[in-house]
Amino acid sequence: MSNMIEGNAVIGQSGGPTAVINQSLVGAIKGLGHHGATRPGHPITRILGMRHGVRGLLEDDLIDMTDFEDARLDRLAQTPSAGLGSTRDKPDQAYCEKILKACEKHNIRYFFYIGGNDSSDTCRIVNELSNAIGYDLRCFHIPKTVDNDLVGNDHTPGFPSAARFVALACRADFMDNISLPGIKINVIMGRHAGFLTAASALARRRDRHEGSTDGPQLIYVPEVVFETERFVQDVAEVFDAKGRCHIAVSEGICDAQGNSIGAQLIAGQTDDHGNVQLSGSGALGDVLSDLLKEKLTPAGGTPPRVRADTFGYVQRCWPDASRVDAAEAHGVGRFAAELAASGEVDGSVAIERVSPIGSAQPYAVQYKRVDLSVVAGKTRHMPEYFLDGHNNVSEMFLEYCEPMIGRLPVFERL
Amino acid sequence: MSNMIEGNAVIGQSGGPTAVINQSLVGAIKGLGHHGATRPGHPITRILGMRHGVRGLLEDDLIDMTDFEDARLDRLAQTPSAGLGSTRDKPDQAYCEKILKACEKHNIRYFFYIGGNDSSDTCRIVNELSNAIGYDLRCFHIPKTVDNDLVGNDHTPGFPSAARFVALACRADFMDNISLPGIKINVIMGRHAGFLTAASALARRRDRHEGSTDGPQLIYVPEVVFETERFVQDVAEVFDAKGRCHIAVSEGICDAQGNSIGAQLIAGQTDDHGNVQLSGSGALGDVLSDLLKEKLTPAGGTPPRVRADTFGYVQRCWPDASRVDAAEAHGVGRFAAELAASGEVDGSVAIERVSPIGSAQPYAVQYKRVDLSVVAGKTRHMPEYFLDGHNNVSEMFLEYCEPMIGRLPVFERL
Repeated sequence: MSNMIEGNAVIGQSGGPTAVINQSLVGAIKGLGHHGATRPGHPITRILGMRHGVRGLLEDDLIDMTDFEDARLDRLAQTPSAGLGSTRDKPDQAYCEKILKACEKHNIRYFFYIGGNDSSDTCRIVNELSNAIGYDLRCFHIPKTVDNDLVGNDHTPGFPSAARFVALACRADFMDNISLPGIKINVIMGRHAGFLTAASALARRRDRHEGSTDGPQLIYVPEVVFETERFVQDVAEVFDAKGRCHIAVSEGICDAQGNSIGAQLIAGQTDDHGNVQLSGSGALGDVLSDLLKEKLTPAGGTPPRVRADTFGYVQRCWPDASRVDAAEAHGVGRFAAELAASGEVDGSVAIERVSPIGSAQPYAVQYKRVDLSVVAGKTRHMPEYFLDGHNNVSEMFLEYCEPMIGRLPVFERL
Repeated sequence: MSNMIEGNAVIGQSGGPTAVINQSLVGAIKGLGHHGATRPGHPITRILGMRHGVRGLLEDDLIDMTDFEDARLDRLAQTPSAGLGSTRDKPDQAYCEKILKACEKHNIRYFFYIGGNDSSDTCRIVNELSNAIGYDLRCFHIPKTVDNDLVGNDHTPGFPSAARFVALACRADFMDNISLPGIKINVIMGRHAGFLTAASALARRRDRHEGSTDGPQLIYVPEVVFETERFVQDVAEVFDAKGRCHIAVSEGICDAQGNSIGAQLIAGQTDDHGNVQLSGSGALGDVLSDLLKEKLTPAGGTPPRVRADTFGYVQRCWPDASRVDAAEAHGVGRFAAELAASGEVDGSVAIERVSPIGSAQPYAVQYKRVDLSVVAGKTRHMPEYFLDGHNNVSEMFLEYCEPMIGRLPVFERL
């Protein structure tokens, strides 16, 4: 620890919570040597938690976690949602100057922020400001997002657990759909990236992938322009062939002009990041449902049975985390602490897959440091090779996801 | 088996699927002595499954399950949703005459129907018709409904598992709500009965029940008239005190005239039972959400953060059944078969609790036969003693539910 500067550490959580974001918090706290931190001579004096992210730091709303018992930390790690509280504040330059002032006030020398691309941008700005004034503050970003949209990462903590929920929900809901046939739309989270919606494909029985008719038969992600007429035609084809149709739609689907279809429907509420509300409303599903009822009603006949569910917030906080995700979320938190202990002065942690996708090698990852600027404020989208046409995902995407989400129950079909 | 008449047995599933309806199917099949049924001298020759309920019987769409391997039955038992397929057909007199004809055609002497109050009514009519013409058909109803609204039952198979999902989802979603504060509405299934919505109260930490501020702080069920102004006032009080509010609302809430508020919002689709569509739409949540945004916006200020999720079909088919529910669902199926074996000629199976609610005795139930007319076509509502004022449930309701749903994970709060 010779390269470590003496002072306090602060940790915060930001953005949409996940089922495993507290694993990262606990990983960092343990990695910083809690308990140990109170030993004379340990460079880190106190480990402070920010309540509701950087807002808590500005408002002196901090919780001292230095002496937390292991048993309490272990329970916290398994608790979904941001234990410290989260925030949607997106600090600008002036806000970040206040963050820096608060760090000086509390003799904070280590700043850890768990979040998505906006949070890494906060880290980047605070880091640049501290460098500019010569205050030795070491800023680390710890990745988190169910959207899986961080650049430089194979995948992000939070995504595998949300993907597991989506796959399980779609597998069970497809059984419901064949039991009481009709057209069923499930709207899934993902503002700009379709990974989570695409994970619905994991619901299909794997051994029947070739030519499988398991649902969802149609998958729409934001990376592919959503054309209403083509959508109606897709559904009509499946419905005509099977008398039912199971559909996964991302909340973030956009028209040819790049306008979010959901955002146009939901009387606009915007957060400080300029993000329009997409979640917490059933509007998109209901409009698509009404559209299908209207277009697919035979002349003089009755409309088909169409239902839409919007998975909502439970998909990001469902308390049955993927074990791989829980371990990795813990791992990135601990790795950030280790970076600090090794004398690194800043950086973001990224997950790198060391076993090639689809190879016979056992799934394995390693953590690495990347520059804050690599991740900050950027959005990763689904690459072409994860897509198959305009309404399906590729075999490679399934192989990419499978090791992360854990085993799914096998259902019996009569 | 001396009182048993020789012939085939038929089993069907009807209405909304559940996580454990296949347990009842398998319980009945095993109770009828499958494999054994093929032995010479066994009164039941074949065990037939109706595809999509009575519709399959009319259309000769039957599956012979007599020789199903145990391993397959055991997998089927653990598969959510109706394995045979379900139906929303509500047979009238003429339809039931066709059912009876199909029974004669296939030499069916045992008719088992797994479903809710509409399904028990089908059993009742078919039973009366067979008695009237002197065809010896033994009709048994096996209870099932997540709504928990069957008369004569302590509770119904399917409800505990759905209640478990609702409690888990609300417990996790409440952590989300305190992490990113705002007003959160969760719309929960229950067309006429509030039991499932009321189960959201199980999300609260039990050891802090007295004066607990855990969500949901407000619960609205169909048994209590929903008054819009009172609702807004309730939410304002909680929101003013805490800066957040967590609300559970039944899809079936009604105004003072008894009109369903949700049904008025959803462009009406009606099934053959005359039931208007309530599920598979986010309309009710969105309207309540818009109402709160409008009414709770301070003069010249910004609207509060309000989000609404509608739990949708996953709550009835989530593949993590309560163990108690799985065992009881199996038990009622097996008991129906035992009734038939004992020479009973008709009836519905009911669950009776033998340990008083809230007593120190271990939870225990027994199954009993009740007349079809007790259950048929009737709806059970939440009794007064399960309610506490117009927006909460009683301690007794919590004690009623707790033994059925199984242990919930304990979350750590900072």
